[in-house]
Amino acid sequence: MRRLGIVGVGLMGGSLALALREKKLFDQIVGCGRSAENLQAAIDLNIIDRAASFEELIAQSDLIALAAPVETVVAIAPKLVAAKQDAVFVDLGSTKTAITRAIPPSIRDRFVAAHPMCGTEYSGAKAAFSSLYNDRIVVLCDTEANDAKALEAVETLFKAIGMRVVKMKAVDHDRHAAFISHLPHAISYALANSVLSQEDKQSILTLAAGGFRDMSRLAKSSASMWIDIFKQNKDSIISAIGEFDKELKKAEKLLENEEWDALKAWMQSANALQEIFKPS
Amino acid sequence: MRRLGIVGVGLMGGSLALALREKKLFDQIVGCGRSAENLQAAIDLNIIDRAASFEELIAQSDLIALAAPVETVVAIAPKLVAAKQDAVFVDLGSTKTAITRAIPPSIRDRFVAAHPMCGTEYSGAKAAFSSLYNDRIVVLCDTEANDAKALEAVETLFKAIGMRVVKMKAVDHDRHAAFISHLPHAISYALANSVLSQEDKQSILTLAAGGFRDMSRLAKSSASMWIDIFKQNKDSIISAIGEFDKELKKAEKLLENEEWDALKAWMQSANALQEIFKPS
Repeated sequence: MRRLGIVGVGLMGGSLALALREKKLFDQIVGCGRSAENLQAAIDLNIIDRAASFEELIAQSDLIALAAPVETVVAIAPKLVAAKQDAVFVDLGSTKTAITRAIPPSIRDRFVAAHPMCGTEYSGAKAAFSSLYNDRIVVLCDTEANDAKALEAVETLFKAIGMRVVKMKAVDHDRHAAFISHLPHAISYALANSVLSQEDKQSILTLAAGGFRDMSRLAKSSASMWIDIFKQNKDSIISAIGEFDKELKKAEKLLENEEWDALKAWMQSANALQEIFKPS
Repeated sequence: MRRLGIVGVGLMGGSLALALREKKLFDQIVGCGRSAENLQAAIDLNIIDRAASFEELIAQSDLIALAAPVETVVAIAPKLVAAKQDAVFVDLGSTKTAITRAIPPSIRDRFVAAHPMCGTEYSGAKAAFSSLYNDRIVVLCDTEANDAKALEAVETLFKAIGMRVVKMKAVDHDRHAAFISHLPHAISYALANSVLSQEDKQSILTLAAGGFRDMSRLAKSSASMWIDIFKQNKDSIISAIGEFDKELKKAEKLLENEEWDALKAWMQSANALQEIFKPS
């Protein structure tokens, strides 16, 4: 019997369970996590077959997927050595440098560090859905540390649920992720807070349409999950905020100086994004 | 015969024509604009019945909708006095102070200054669709300057296509619009430019998923249209950028100082947006 163990049955872990259940790659799916209520919801929604303690799950699973907040993944990493000798590990964290460093050497070859580039602003088992991973990219980091069999097992699994695999160094991943995921979250939180700090916020929000809705969507994201990401990717995020701020300052200065031609050229250069970024 | 004249048959003007055509409120819809190619597209797409020169359109129409870039609206305002004595005017511009000031006194009572809170990042007649206005808010500004009949005609028209009417002062509108529409555009352009300025932009964008897509969508918006808005709402936009920047700086400082509890609280305060902002 092949058993999948999910540590953290939220949006990411729950959706992985649902997608793999559809593909029938495992005979049983077991989950663990801090909230008994969330685990019960996961059972009720047929996401997992049963709940277990963390220790039971680690001891019994053939594939262990770590889908907890990234500081939790780092904290529990030393305990993973209690797993079966041929168990394979994969984590789904948004940061990769701190996690790859935290993996005990004895299991490093069987631990595949992954970041599926997908998500929503919602969290918990109830937010999970089986198509979350379909047609999205998953980044595997520092795979030269993995043995071929473990790596192949994880690649097969992600491909089975419709993902395209990209490989890169953990440090490069963290720099890139700072720009296209962590910085947008910082911006969205800042936008939300700047409007909420206005005296007439209610009148302002009455007028908010699609543009503002899109820009503020990420501001709903779980603070407990995102504070961990900011902790682990601090330097890259500070650097990305700096690059963004340089551009915003440039626009502000052109606006103040009424340099309309230059401001229009700045807007036009941003238009070029659509040429090289065609979302699937 | 009741004739609708649309000055600028793009996303906004074209969509208004399509929506009003469905409601059969006019016998004929005429359009004018700078691009003959765009006007031909509007005829081919059955958005307008025919094209006319600006002068013909003004002289012949019962309702004149101004859907050109806002600097164009200001520039052509003096010529509107050539319209029929009982013609009613409405503009759809994203700024309202400069436009309301530019309207000739002799037609001010028949000119309703409106801002429908909807749009997409695309422009031109081909981007128009009949449901753009449905279930959205339209702001009417400084309506105390309007005579009752003209105001009622315009309100009836917007309500017929599914809009909810909100009234406010033009200066308040411009301050609010700076926060929920113009600032998000500045941010989106800045985000796009900050990523495009990176040496490894292609690798970065390979990883970009939903969050980044949402945040960078507005960066596709027409620079020709938006430079006008930035010109006319300069002060409010500078002030909104300042408020936003204050929040982003706050986060950056907390991150640098590793004040994790305070940074998490900052994220949580942004989460509160979802409580008071429930988009329709």
